[in-house]
Amino acid sequence: MVSAADAVIPACAAVGIAFAVWQWLLVSRVKVSPYSAAAAAARNGGAGRAVFRPEGEVDDDDGGCGDDEEADGDGGVAAMARCAEIQSAIRVGANSFLFTQYKYLAAFTAVFAVVIFLFLGSVHRFSTESQPCQYTRGKACKPALANAVFSTIAFLLGAATSVASGFLGMRIATAANARTTVEARRGIGPAFAAAFRSGAVMGFLLASLGLLVLYVAIKVFGLYYGDDWEGLYESITGYGLGGSSMALFGRVGGGIYTKAADVGADLVGKVERNIPEDDPRNPAVIADNVGDNVGDIAGMGSDLFGSYAESTCAALFVGSISSFGADHNFAAVSYPLLISSAGLIVCLITTLFATDLYRVKTVDGVAPALKLQLLISTVLMTVGVLVVTFTALPHEFTMFDFGEVKRVKNWHLFFCVTIGLWAGLAIGFTTEYFTSNAYSPVRDVADSCRTGAATNVIFGLALGYKSVIVPVFAIAVSIYVSFTLASIYGIAVAALGMLSTVATGLAIDAYGPISDNAGGIAEMAGMSHRIRQRTDALDAAGNTTAAIGKGFAIGSAALVSLALFGAFVSRAGMAVINVLSPKVFVGLVVGAMLPYWFSAMTMKSVGSAALKMVEEVRRQFAAIPGLMEGRATPDYASCVRISTDASLREMMPPGALVLLAPLVAGTFFGVQTLAGLLAGALVSGVQVAISASNSGGAWDNAKKYIEAGASDHAKALGPKGSDAHKAAVIGDTIGDPLKDTSGPSLNILIKLMAVESLVFAPFFAAHGGLIFK
Amino acid sequence: MVSAADAVIPACAAVGIAFAVWQWLLVSRVKVSPYSAAAAAARNGGAGRAVFRPEGEVDDDDGGCGDDEEADGDGGVAAMARCAEIQSAIRVGANSFLFTQYKYLAAFTAVFAVVIFLFLGSVHRFSTESQPCQYTRGKACKPALANAVFSTIAFLLGAATSVASGFLGMRIATAANARTTVEARRGIGPAFAAAFRSGAVMGFLLASLGLLVLYVAIKVFGLYYGDDWEGLYESITGYGLGGSSMALFGRVGGGIYTKAADVGADLVGKVERNIPEDDPRNPAVIADNVGDNVGDIAGMGSDLFGSYAESTCAALFVGSISSFGADHNFAAVSYPLLISSAGLIVCLITTLFATDLYRVKTVDGVAPALKLQLLISTVLMTVGVLVVTFTALPHEFTMFDFGEVKRVKNWHLFFCVTIGLWAGLAIGFTTEYFTSNAYSPVRDVADSCRTGAATNVIFGLALGYKSVIVPVFAIAVSIYVSFTLASIYGIAVAALGMLSTVATGLAIDAYGPISDNAGGIAEMAGMSHRIRQRTDALDAAGNTTAAIGKGFAIGSAALVSLALFGAFVSRAGMAVINVLSPKVFVGLVVGAMLPYWFSAMTMKSVGSAALKMVEEVRRQFAAIPGLMEGRATPDYASCVRISTDASLREMMPPGALVLLAPLVAGTFFGVQTLAGLLAGALVSGVQVAISASNSGGAWDNAKKYIEAGASDHAKALGPKGSDAHKAAVIGDTIGDPLKDTSGPSLNILIKLMAVESLVFAPFFAAHGGLIFK
Repeated sequence: MVSAADAVIPACAAVGIAFAVWQWLLVSRVKVSPYSAAAAAARNGGAGRAVFRPEGEVDDDDGGCGDDEEADGDGGVAAMARCAEIQSAIRVGANSFLFTQYKYLAAFTAVFAVVIFLFLGSVHRFSTESQPCQYTRGKACKPALANAVFSTIAFLLGAATSVASGFLGMRIATAANARTTVEARRGIGPAFAAAFRSGAVMGFLLASLGLLVLYVAIKVFGLYYGDDWEGLYESITGYGLGGSSMALFGRVGGGIYTKAADVGADLVGKVERNIPEDDPRNPAVIADNVGDNVGDIAGMGSDLFGSYAESTCAALFVGSISSFGADHNFAAVSYPLLISSAGLIVCLITTLFATDLYRVKTVDGVAPALKLQLLISTVLMTVGVLVVTFTALPHEFTMFDFGEVKRVKNWHLFFCVTIGLWAGLAIGFTTEYFTSNAYSPVRDVADSCRTGAATNVIFGLALGYKSVIVPVFAIAVSIYVSFTLASIYGIAVAALGMLSTVATGLAIDAYGPISDNAGGIAEMAGMSHRIRQRTDALDAAGNTTAAIGKGFAIGSAALVSLALFGAFVSRAGMAVINVLSPKVFVGLVVGAMLPYWFSAMTMKSVGSAALKMVEEVRRQFAAIPGLMEGRATPDYASCVRISTDASLREMMPPGALVLLAPLVAGTFFGVQTLAGLLAGALVSGVQVAISASNSGGAWDNAKKYIEAGASDHAKALGPKGSDAHKAAVIGDTIGDPLKDTSGPSLNILIKLMAVESLVFAPFFAAHGGLIFK
Repeated sequence: MVSAADAVIPACAAVGIAFAVWQWLLVSRVKVSPYSAAAAAARNGGAGRAVFRPEGEVDDDDGGCGDDEEADGDGGVAAMARCAEIQSAIRVGANSFLFTQYKYLAAFTAVFAVVIFLFLGSVHRFSTESQPCQYTRGKACKPALANAVFSTIAFLLGAATSVASGFLGMRIATAANARTTVEARRGIGPAFAAAFRSGAVMGFLLASLGLLVLYVAIKVFGLYYGDDWEGLYESITGYGLGGSSMALFGRVGGGIYTKAADVGADLVGKVERNIPEDDPRNPAVIADNVGDNVGDIAGMGSDLFGSYAESTCAALFVGSISSFGADHNFAAVSYPLLISSAGLIVCLITTLFATDLYRVKTVDGVAPALKLQLLISTVLMTVGVLVVTFTALPHEFTMFDFGEVKRVKNWHLFFCVTIGLWAGLAIGFTTEYFTSNAYSPVRDVADSCRTGAATNVIFGLALGYKSVIVPVFAIAVSIYVSFTLASIYGIAVAALGMLSTVATGLAIDAYGPISDNAGGIAEMAGMSHRIRQRTDALDAAGNTTAAIGKGFAIGSAALVSLALFGAFVSRAGMAVINVLSPKVFVGLVVGAMLPYWFSAMTMKSVGSAALKMVEEVRRQFAAIPGLMEGRATPDYASCVRISTDASLREMMPPGALVLLAPLVAGTFFGVQTLAGLLAGALVSGVQVAISASNSGGAWDNAKKYIEAGASDHAKALGPKGSDAHKAAVIGDTIGDPLKDTSGPSLNILIKLMAVESLVFAPFFAAHGGLIFK
């Protein structure tokens, strides 16, 4: 059966990929190698590099011509060569870490694939006979063994796509960083365009790839399953599990890597030796820059890909056991995929606003341009949702509602998706308010540095706690409305709504670490203060957008895991999860504890790894003569090795906790306790994650606020090296593991536990609860 | 109807009060006024002060005789006069704060009493006619108006008892502090005895008073209610609400007071001016010592009294709607009171172990003596529970189980109480492990100070997160066992079990701040280093016991609020709280957010008040000539005023949040959402509270570990003033609001919201849910 969806989905994915390629072609025209740059400059007076500049446009408001001269002074062959060299060191480090990590992940994936197959195969003792369907009465469905086989395949596919997403992101980012530095010589506008376009490449590739692989998998699996859509979409959920389990290790491993290096570099460099960030004399500086790429880029790419895959799988599964599935209406059941397809087109238009229609010309224009992206994509997407909803869906249909049936109208789903979308925007703007140094919360935190690090930390923690209020209400309203309108399907599509603009979200998010790296390269290549100021401005906006990205990630994770939770509950055949049952309540309270256990592990890991890094950096400063004076080169590789070893070793225990908790709870204590566990982890994890991200973001920007000294207030607190600044640096360092390791990993904790429970639900329902039986 | 319970309960309460008076007489024989001490010394060579020393006993292991000489050198008339003067300053400050606070509380109590009356009276439109009973079919019960009147009276009684408890505790502590200092001149043993006995006075007074007032109230209310026990015990729940709402303001107000002063004093004194803690030149030093008494003593007294009152009320209410009530078996329905009565006798015996049977002779003996208290009281109480259970209860009976009926045997209840009791011990010992500097967790935190304040904070936060694991499992097991055996009644008596040794718990808990004050007085009175070392040793053990006390408080609060939650659900006539209902889930996620909102407020309050304090202290050091050199006296009163004003002003918003949240949720969104809210706040609040307390305790003791320099490792990190020590001081300061303001206040948040919901349940059930109807 061929439907219009069969044309639209692959077409949109193809457009997305084409757009990513086009953006990349634009970025790649900036040359970093010393030879070609010099040659191009000789050939046509610098215009060869001016890929982002139409004829006659002025570079930026502080004098285009002087800049170009300065750029030549800065650049020349030597500085360019240095840029290329540093970029290559970062790329090699990131490559080597990811490849080592992938070796571990391959082993894990193989083992876990076997576990999935055995657990699911054992549901009906590996019988190859058809069984009566669970939801469609009186029909025969494919055997549990088929579900085991296809779930395992889907799991492997999801894992592969997730790894590919992370890896591609890293490759793009490590190619874009030095290009952004090179463009920064020409002004803030071209630099912004280079960083943002590169982010867009990653965003569009990931979003398109995720959609396409999922679509193809459904089609291929469908060849076997035929009209057994229950079985088809149940096995497809393995895709989400694969994506999310890779994301877990990506986020945790990458998070530990990046923060061990960052904290270690800062503690010796900034605090003890009083040398600036990214100073080439600091032995940990390359590791720090590698960290941005493996943690913030590869980790985050896998994470958002996971969220996207999971929410789609949850929606597809619930749709398949509702009237969409019963009627075999492919367009309707593909509604989640169509929403994502529309999202790609919307994000494409949105991107043009930042790169072509509205150009950043000054330092102050960066943050508004990024904010505008969020707003434009949300507004346009609302229209997109409207179109998709009224073309793809029948006017009225029924939804599975925990054993009951709920009558739903198409405009109900429009509201579900839209409320998720707009709740995402609300979360984004709240996060911006609490983490940007343009507003009073961060300024209050900066102000508290006057009395030292202790008050800075107290104020920062309080800020993080306070910043959960609005996002939680936004999530609560989304849940209430979408749950009431369309039960668990409503939640799933609300999550999809929040993630529908994921290409833009990823572009904005990836922009941050690329700018951060660009600044690092400028510093290490010895470029002038002015260049560094520009990359710093890009980076400061990037801190806020990183926090916004984390806000989206956690908000969508909350909705996604609730949707998965609902799908799990449906699949396990439960109609009620009663808080007044001891089994459930025990799950609830232990589940609420898991984010703490997990954070304890990851924070401690960062702390220990940072201590090792500090010792190595101190050792090098002591052992290598002339290092401090810049006459000798530090041993960058040994610092890279420390981060790599620590992160790979330390990512295991938290990973095991997350993966084993649902298996243990389900197998020994049964589905009721497991349901409690998931709900507890969800409601508690959301708070910990949001507060950790925002405290960290606020400390970072409070420090940047003092360093920039842009107002009288900020000047009174600074300059760099003042007591208030030192206090701010301590806060920033504390925030590092909170905002880049523990906080964002918690998204994955709550999602992964839920999707794992969903995939293993048939097993738990059949054989679970050994102790509480 | 008169039962044996009518003899046992008042008798035990009387014994408890008599024991408290006896202990106080022993303590009060230590004279602080210069005249009488000198006179006594002249009269019989110092023996007049030797109340705790049998003839011929050696003071302590480092030389009794030299000590006495030193004591005279230290003491003399001048030092004694100074002690008396400082003690009086602290007492005056504490008195004045509490009286001002009570004025606010009186106004609040009056308003809230009217609210209770109006809300509950409106349930049946203030009708004076009898109504059919809710649980006993076919019988007439007293009108809702009577419930309104008696609930209001019970509320006022609870509030009054709570205030009296806090006030008495403060009076005892401010009388005991200088006596402990005076005794410290004679050795560690007498000083320990003075501090611990004073703690026992407070513990026994509070436990006995709470029991007695509740018993009398039941008897007096019974004169009106006759055999309508449903109505009687429903209105008695107002007692818990009264106790807890005063405790809220006591904990929050006192917590802000003490930490604003402490943080302010430390930031200028220790960090900027490099003068020791409690140095008399520091203008905030009196405010800091006042804070210990109004926060840690009065606040904690009210808090534990509240827990005790609430768990008893919850158990009484559930018992009254079970077969105990239906059979009008007073001994059985009074089971919770009998458990508490037995607890008083057990604690009395336990106290003798610390003061008479096993004496502390060396510095190293302090912590084991306190730990032994916990162990002995738990073992003895297990026997006590056995006796009470098998004498007071019938062999078999039925318990109300959310609309159903559960058959329960008396030995089931024995297990319920005992598991609560032993879970308390497990929590206590876990807390000790994570906060005492005798074990590796705190030593690791101390070690991380080598690399500065940032790693110290990261490790401390990770430690706090990790420390929730065992307590949460202990709570979960208690809940599972007691819930399964005896439904909500099981939870209530498990909570009571944990609180049954509250007299000993309070004694240990109050011992800490008394020792802290004693150290402060020794420092300010200019006594020798040796005296200060002894009080420091007492204080270090006190930090750990304070953390243990907080562990108990939060553990019992979790059980108490679950019991109250169950009672509320029963009273509101709900049989199922389904997580899969949007109304419930929304409540759950918002409830889990409330502890963060609340903590944001309290942390920020401490931070802001501390900033003001810092400014005032800095101003005085700058403005008063000769202050730093010790030639001038600081203006202590202005610092006391700043703490007082700040705490009274800042306690309002968090108080309003806690009190309004259930009212708003119940009135506008209905009982289902409210039930979700309570469950969410409970499961999330427990984690935040435990981790905050333990992080704070660990930082404090890591600092003390470095200061004491008792091992090679500690010496390598120290001495005072080293970089590692400075980093440790920052951690300690950050921990202050976490462990003494936010953390412990969260106990009250979860309990108070639950008891408030219970009291207002008839109103919510009748008129609630305006929006979600």
